[in-house]
Amino acid sequence: MNLSTKEPFDTLVGVDIGGTKVDVLVTDSELSPLAEVRSKVKSNSPEDFVSSIRLAVSEALNKAGTSIPQVRGIGIGIPGQVVPEEGTVRNAVNLELSEFPLARILSDQFDSLPIFLEKDVHNAAVDAFLRVNENNHIENLAFVNIGTGISAGLVLNGRLYRGEHGMAGEIGHSVFLPDGPHCSCGNFGCLEALAAGPAIERLGREAVESGKSTRIDVATSQGVFSAAAQGDEVAGNILQKVGGYLGQALQNLVMAYDVGKIVLGGGVSREGKRLLEPILQEWSRMAEASTLAASLLLPEIIEVVPADHKPGVWGAIFVAQKRLGSYDHIKSGNVTKRLANLKL
Amino acid sequence: MNLSTKEPFDTLVGVDIGGTKVDVLVTDSELSPLAEVRSKVKSNSPEDFVSSIRLAVSEALNKAGTSIPQVRGIGIGIPGQVVPEEGTVRNAVNLELSEFPLARILSDQFDSLPIFLEKDVHNAAVDAFLRVNENNHIENLAFVNIGTGISAGLVLNGRLYRGEHGMAGEIGHSVFLPDGPHCSCGNFGCLEALAAGPAIERLGREAVESGKSTRIDVATSQGVFSAAAQGDEVAGNILQKVGGYLGQALQNLVMAYDVGKIVLGGGVSREGKRLLEPILQEWSRMAEASTLAASLLLPEIIEVVPADHKPGVWGAIFVAQKRLGSYDHIKSGNVTKRLANLKL
Repeated sequence: MNLSTKEPFDTLVGVDIGGTKVDVLVTDSELSPLAEVRSKVKSNSPEDFVSSIRLAVSEALNKAGTSIPQVRGIGIGIPGQVVPEEGTVRNAVNLELSEFPLARILSDQFDSLPIFLEKDVHNAAVDAFLRVNENNHIENLAFVNIGTGISAGLVLNGRLYRGEHGMAGEIGHSVFLPDGPHCSCGNFGCLEALAAGPAIERLGREAVESGKSTRIDVATSQGVFSAAAQGDEVAGNILQKVGGYLGQALQNLVMAYDVGKIVLGGGVSREGKRLLEPILQEWSRMAEASTLAASLLLPEIIEVVPADHKPGVWGAIFVAQKRLGSYDHIKSGNVTKRLANLKL
Repeated sequence: MNLSTKEPFDTLVGVDIGGTKVDVLVTDSELSPLAEVRSKVKSNSPEDFVSSIRLAVSEALNKAGTSIPQVRGIGIGIPGQVVPEEGTVRNAVNLELSEFPLARILSDQFDSLPIFLEKDVHNAAVDAFLRVNENNHIENLAFVNIGTGISAGLVLNGRLYRGEHGMAGEIGHSVFLPDGPHCSCGNFGCLEALAAGPAIERLGREAVESGKSTRIDVATSQGVFSAAAQGDEVAGNILQKVGGYLGQALQNLVMAYDVGKIVLGGGVSREGKRLLEPILQEWSRMAEASTLAASLLLPEIIEVVPADHKPGVWGAIFVAQKRLGSYDHIKSGNVTKRLANLKL
């Protein structure tokens, strides 16, 4: 490590805002992590919301032994419809406001620091794209978040793809079973209502309540996964069903986008192999039947984010670094080259 | 019309190769049509195939009163997996060859003319993108071909999107009903097996064979459409069902890509309103249930190609013109500007 990596004005901050929690990461100019913080998001009012984000950032800077005057910029990811040029968000989970200028408000509170706002899965897709291309040459990638909801972030033709209204990748609300369960969006049989965390939890609860002989702990989707891992047949069948829907959804994604890589992240994806296996079984079933499927549904194109890696905050850091420019100094790996190739 | 439009060396040729027929269009330097030809494609052997394409082009040039030495370039669209830089096609409907260098072979036969090969729906998407942007500013568009099969061509971020293997937009093979009818690709319940021309025909035939009281003419999918137009209930129900699947597929497309416009082309789309109505009914049903759906599923984003317009040949012309460069002279509309903005 050389002296320049310790220059205080080179600090970057990445923020990933979720439904209830916010993750903050502080890095030095080499993009090496200095400190991480996870804290609660308040959603009583816009003021409380903003102040909870501000406090989390300050706490992380303290922990890193640095402060706002030393920060070059902050990247932020938030679920919702984001207009990056304006730094505004709409339909955010925590904010029932039609248009909220989050970047400007935070910048005002942080000495006019440059703040870069993106949809959370878009940041995560940037992180996935840069990491995958450490050892690959892939132009088209989907990051699929499977957690409380399901959504995708896309890098297509080497460029972050937002769509006409910043809503690209809302695959969780693709209708799969028009007569299926009710979804939070109001429709029926959306992918999210069939295969996200709460759907797995619901299927587990229904199995228990129906009196089936099962070891499922009703409280969480993890309960279903761990029961299945212990050989519980009822839990295994649930994962088979969920994996079937996810396999079908990822098949749709491959047919529609012809991506070179799919990276799975989010709470449910932390189950790793236990989630991946039924998905790949569904793919293998389709590939056996069809040469087109066989040529495109290659198991190796799906990767699961390691359980300890946070693509959302890392993506926020990369986006901030890319927007700020001047990353020629970064010596770790070939990050500079990959950042230069990425288009936002 | 000024003299320059009659300069013989400014002629362009567009070719759209289908399963059984080939369309050829010859234009002058202003992209005004000079002659059109439709003829049969021979598929007995690669030699017969190439010679049937060559003959169709020669016939169209004759008809236009021009010949190969006056042609600047030829754009060609073909269904299959195309590598444009190499001018090769694989898995083409007519050619059971693993990799066929169609552009080079034709160029050899046509005095080394520049030949630009693309997947057919990609060309059609370029045509749709240029036409839609005559009066709009749309960056993201899907052209959806509904005919013997179903597939999409995409322009995303103002650039033709091909995917990692040139296979983007194969939405006809997105699985919709895992227990559904057998698809030509080998799988079950693909969109194509539920809603393309042959599927409509099959549903009509099944209704007739089951002895239902219906005016459907069993021979074609048009028979189902015209019976429905005459108030035939059985035919109406078939179109309702097919429109439901298509509505769901186009909803998936909007959720995945967040396109600003969907242009429907292909044989089945010539039914126009009769096809569009059940699709929009499905969209309206979804929009009533969900604010997300209501904000994205706007009826006006779907357009049907006029029955007399051939997006495939026109797209081939535009792609050839764009690749050849130097289109500043074109005076009709703002074609020059739109060609300049398009990225291939």
